[in-house]
Amino acid sequence: MLNLPNQVTIIEVGPRDGLQNTQHIIPTIQKLNFIHSLQDAGIKEMEITSFVSPKWVPQMADHTDIVMNVNKIGKQYVLAPNEIGIQKALSLNSKAIAVFVGVSNTFNKKNINQTTLESMNTLTPIIKDLKKEGVFVRACISTAFYCPYEGGIFPEDTLALCRQFVDLGVDELSVADTIGMANPVESYSLFSLLKQELPNVLLTAHFHDTRQMALANIFASLQAGINRFDSSAGGLGGCPFAKGATGNVATEDVVFMLEQMGIQTGIDIQKVCKSLKHLQPFLKEEISSAQYKLYQQR
Amino acid sequence: MLNLPNQVTIIEVGPRDGLQNTQHIIPTIQKLNFIHSLQDAGIKEMEITSFVSPKWVPQMADHTDIVMNVNKIGKQYVLAPNEIGIQKALSLNSKAIAVFVGVSNTFNKKNINQTTLESMNTLTPIIKDLKKEGVFVRACISTAFYCPYEGGIFPEDTLALCRQFVDLGVDELSVADTIGMANPVESYSLFSLLKQELPNVLLTAHFHDTRQMALANIFASLQAGINRFDSSAGGLGGCPFAKGATGNVATEDVVFMLEQMGIQTGIDIQKVCKSLKHLQPFLKEEISSAQYKLYQQR
Repeated sequence: MLNLPNQVTIIEVGPRDGLQNTQHIIPTIQKLNFIHSLQDAGIKEMEITSFVSPKWVPQMADHTDIVMNVNKIGKQYVLAPNEIGIQKALSLNSKAIAVFVGVSNTFNKKNINQTTLESMNTLTPIIKDLKKEGVFVRACISTAFYCPYEGGIFPEDTLALCRQFVDLGVDELSVADTIGMANPVESYSLFSLLKQELPNVLLTAHFHDTRQMALANIFASLQAGINRFDSSAGGLGGCPFAKGATGNVATEDVVFMLEQMGIQTGIDIQKVCKSLKHLQPFLKEEISSAQYKLYQQR
Repeated sequence: MLNLPNQVTIIEVGPRDGLQNTQHIIPTIQKLNFIHSLQDAGIKEMEITSFVSPKWVPQMADHTDIVMNVNKIGKQYVLAPNEIGIQKALSLNSKAIAVFVGVSNTFNKKNINQTTLESMNTLTPIIKDLKKEGVFVRACISTAFYCPYEGGIFPEDTLALCRQFVDLGVDELSVADTIGMANPVESYSLFSLLKQELPNVLLTAHFHDTRQMALANIFASLQAGINRFDSSAGGLGGCPFAKGATGNVATEDVVFMLEQMGIQTGIDIQKVCKSLKHLQPFLKEEISSAQYKLYQQR
């Protein structure tokens, strides 16, 4: 018998993780329209922007405008990679902050020029402060399965890093297959381990569809007891390898599979597709999720 | 715990089900090259052509030349929809013949102008004769989950039709989600039922990737005890709805997932991709499987 939940929470990462990797700068008003139409589609948790340096990520240069003007509906995460970003987010009254670190040293070093240990040393006092102030902390664990430089990651190493965050009091772990390489057996296995070892934290799975396995991984993770998934409307977002290959798994495709299996998400696929239709003219990339293609043919 | 097999048999349907739905007529020599290079990649079972009327399917008009000139390696299926096709296949010494029928009356009627019952009345004496002559009979059960006209199909109806074929002595049932609509729960459930009720027939699952769920369905079917899957190199084949959407699930993507999970297929992904690279110039459609995209970037 299959063991599946009745309900799943989708954390929409399109406006941050998705748009961050698009090639054109999207006007702020279009980003806000996108966020608001996704809220209208039933999205209740969303990464809305990132407090990174505009020098590194020009697309997120309007983070202040986004946070100031967004409708405060549901849970809204802002990503902040360091002390400066976090202070800025706090000054704008952000109530939920996402931090990130890679299990792989090499990946972390190439990504933010710190080893994993250095990152943790930096983040430790920050997270303690955030928790003192009652901020919801979401820790994004990248390269939890595979690293593009180091190859396979030991589940024990991912667990150890996750445990450090839990000990610091973070509220949620978003555990990511950053390069879209994990298979369903590995997903089932790692999430079963994390569920068992870390019962008192929200566990979220974050899959990329680089090798077409994202929905299979989600199905496997459901069986391991996971009921929170990151996804990106339109599958927008980083494709570290393949031109034209999808990056993040597409929200509308995840929702379709879940709802067809009788698992409630509260999200209206047609409305998600409509919000993508309005965004498409501002993108260089063509949106190519299965549900969006079907939507366009109506 | 997950219950998975150690080994899986892939039935390659690209040269028949795949090419049949392409828009350009492929030269016979290129089809033979394609078939032979897939054999070289480790494919051991393959649908190689179809004995249909050239009036209806011009792409398959060269079926005689294909059967006469193909290297006789592994198990080779030819599709034959009726008495004329079957006699022709037998006259060419075909040892394994595939017949097909839809669970949905409406689909069957639109597809071959007979109700399901009429099809079975036609096929019954033919199959009996084939079995008398020692021919391997593969029955392709289309619309086993959903029909584009009738909607959801009752599992009991699919089971009843499958049982009729088993009672006639067919060797294999290829049970298809023709419109790519089934979800993993339905796949697990139907294949568990068929496994239990029809223990003495080879059961093969045939998924389309129209809604991105094919690999998730395969993962679910593995858990139901299925260890035979139809797939099409490059994902070539019918896309009844979506322009640009994949039809059949791509062999190389299936093999990648299986091998990554430690399930042996005996198939070399790089060689499959190489055979696709040689075929691509003769196709109007662009091959867009995940593995082929990665292969092209090397």
